[in-house]
Amino acid sequence: MDRRSFLKNSALGGTAAAAATLAAPAYAQGKRTLTMVTTWGRGLAGVHDSAQYAADAITEMTDGALTVDLKAAGELVGAFEVFDAVTAGQADLYHGVDYYFLSQHPALSFFSQVPFGMTFQEFNNWFYHDGGRDLADEVYSIFGIKSFPVGNTGPQSGGWFAKEMNGVEDFQGLRFRMPGQGGQVLGKLGASVQNLPGAEVYQALASGAIDGTEWIGPWADEKAGFQEITKFYYTAGFHEPGPNLNLNMNLDVYESLTPSQQSIVANAARASNLWTMSLFMANNSAALQRLQSSGVKLMSFSDAIWDAFGAAAKEVVEESLGDDLYKSCYDSYMASLNSSATWGSRSEGAFSAQRNRVMGL
Amino acid sequence: MDRRSFLKNSALGGTAAAAATLAAPAYAQGKRTLTMVTTWGRGLAGVHDSAQYAADAITEMTDGALTVDLKAAGELVGAFEVFDAVTAGQADLYHGVDYYFLSQHPALSFFSQVPFGMTFQEFNNWFYHDGGRDLADEVYSIFGIKSFPVGNTGPQSGGWFAKEMNGVEDFQGLRFRMPGQGGQVLGKLGASVQNLPGAEVYQALASGAIDGTEWIGPWADEKAGFQEITKFYYTAGFHEPGPNLNLNMNLDVYESLTPSQQSIVANAARASNLWTMSLFMANNSAALQRLQSSGVKLMSFSDAIWDAFGAAAKEVVEESLGDDLYKSCYDSYMASLNSSATWGSRSEGAFSAQRNRVMGL
Repeated sequence: MDRRSFLKNSALGGTAAAAATLAAPAYAQGKRTLTMVTTWGRGLAGVHDSAQYAADAITEMTDGALTVDLKAAGELVGAFEVFDAVTAGQADLYHGVDYYFLSQHPALSFFSQVPFGMTFQEFNNWFYHDGGRDLADEVYSIFGIKSFPVGNTGPQSGGWFAKEMNGVEDFQGLRFRMPGQGGQVLGKLGASVQNLPGAEVYQALASGAIDGTEWIGPWADEKAGFQEITKFYYTAGFHEPGPNLNLNMNLDVYESLTPSQQSIVANAARASNLWTMSLFMANNSAALQRLQSSGVKLMSFSDAIWDAFGAAAKEVVEESLGDDLYKSCYDSYMASLNSSATWGSRSEGAFSAQRNRVMGL
Repeated sequence: MDRRSFLKNSALGGTAAAAATLAAPAYAQGKRTLTMVTTWGRGLAGVHDSAQYAADAITEMTDGALTVDLKAAGELVGAFEVFDAVTAGQADLYHGVDYYFLSQHPALSFFSQVPFGMTFQEFNNWFYHDGGRDLADEVYSIFGIKSFPVGNTGPQSGGWFAKEMNGVEDFQGLRFRMPGQGGQVLGKLGASVQNLPGAEVYQALASGAIDGTEWIGPWADEKAGFQEITKFYYTAGFHEPGPNLNLNMNLDVYESLTPSQQSIVANAARASNLWTMSLFMANNSAALQRLQSSGVKLMSFSDAIWDAFGAAAKEVVEESLGDDLYKSCYDSYMASLNSSATWGSRSEGAFSAQRNRVMGL
């Protein structure tokens, strides 16, 4: 699927084509503006902050030699147009989450989120030290992109429901908002899954047009105001335990950078990855306390519901195994997850459980 | 406790004093070598790698304008001399872990490790977004240091024991190697705590001079070869659930850098923080599988032992509350830990437990 050669010759191929024809030293001597587009509305809690952090870090560290001009969703191209814009060179890079673009290649799920998949730390173990980086290069090179992990929201909440979910049968016919593969999983349980734009979700829930919605986590959910409509808030969810955000640069643009500038982009992304995850976790923690104080009921799905989520997630994730590259990613990802999960549960999992029990946290 | 003014006038005060008298622009035009010392022997698994990553990232991103010359422990100064060397300006920065230097100020424990304290993610939440940064600046400014989190080993293992530990009474008279506040905790349980240099631990355990030792985690422990001596390996420990490694720069040197160079140092440290944690977690996961295959018995302390660890840790941590700055750090740290632990257990903790149960991980 060589979209790159097609798009390079299309009307959109401006910036990247120009970049490819100038030698790298010419850039090094002057200032250069890189246009970053995003899948986020300007100011969207946490995710826009993450894009701004990465943009500012690149600008600061290059002392403006690379000045990143951040265009939020809609300011240059729409949220779901960023992948094509960067592939084609209309923009130099984007900040987003690649499960929006599974129609481009199903393996993008491994570099954003697989339902029932890796947490933030497990993903980083795999990406930086256990084979993920090389596989990402293989997948993204199809599209003329160099991809970097640039942030994470941490585990997303199960969501807001108009009523208690007591058994798997309660998902039958449930009108619920959940995008991506998570939504496909709920579909297998009989839910009527809605893909509403973010701006319409509050009103749909308030009017009863939907029976529930997932969003991000306590911080963003509180800002959205769902606690004004219903009090049933399921915390841990199966669908996005550690969604990796992507900083994706046009490959020709990346290759035109000096080695020093390439290192700055890579390290800006890594720094942003940690900073963003911590931003979400710190703010989610504080927001959870406020939500509890305001009368929200923190709920957990039963084991039987988790079992059903798991069986359906397995079906969804295994549907694309006929694609060789998807299968290579799947095998590497699952082996690494198995290894990381074992040590994780025996170390941090066991410690945290004992500490919280002993200290009453 | 103004050690800085004293040391600045001492014979060690060379580099920093020189740095302070030259204007920043003079540096910006040329190349400058920064000497980094460490508390690690050259090549020590993970921790030396972390120091090298940070050194190389600064050198690469500045295109050599700041060239970091890494001197491992003993190459310029000894492991436990790095704090004084950087305070005095004999070296420009060090990579180490500041629980080695609690005699300088007890509050350094909050920026390295408190027994029963924060994990990696909880520490980052606090440091970057919940008050830790400002308190670190207050503590470290006493010593003329600017401090950055630069890595983490992840949760350290409980350790290797010659026999099973069935109850709290088994710690009475136990000859055990554990440095720092963790060792103080075991001392309260009646253990005879030994502070052996790393190079002597294997022989002491093999000869029966000690009854057990903690080290780091499966990766480093396997390299040390303890599995050749005993098979009883307790995984989760109470003493270092997420030890933060420190990149500490002489404050005058830091302030002589350009804003762009300061941003590079800060972001190199953040990138290294994430990269290092992932390095340890990925390698620990793989090593744990090998240790299990070789017949090592993975053990867990009982609830009663954890209760005793917790009570003794509380005593140790609260012993310095008479110091106002220590108390300020303690109050901020504990409030943040309480908040992070609640969301952490309801989100990632709950998800991981359900996923591992459903998928049989």
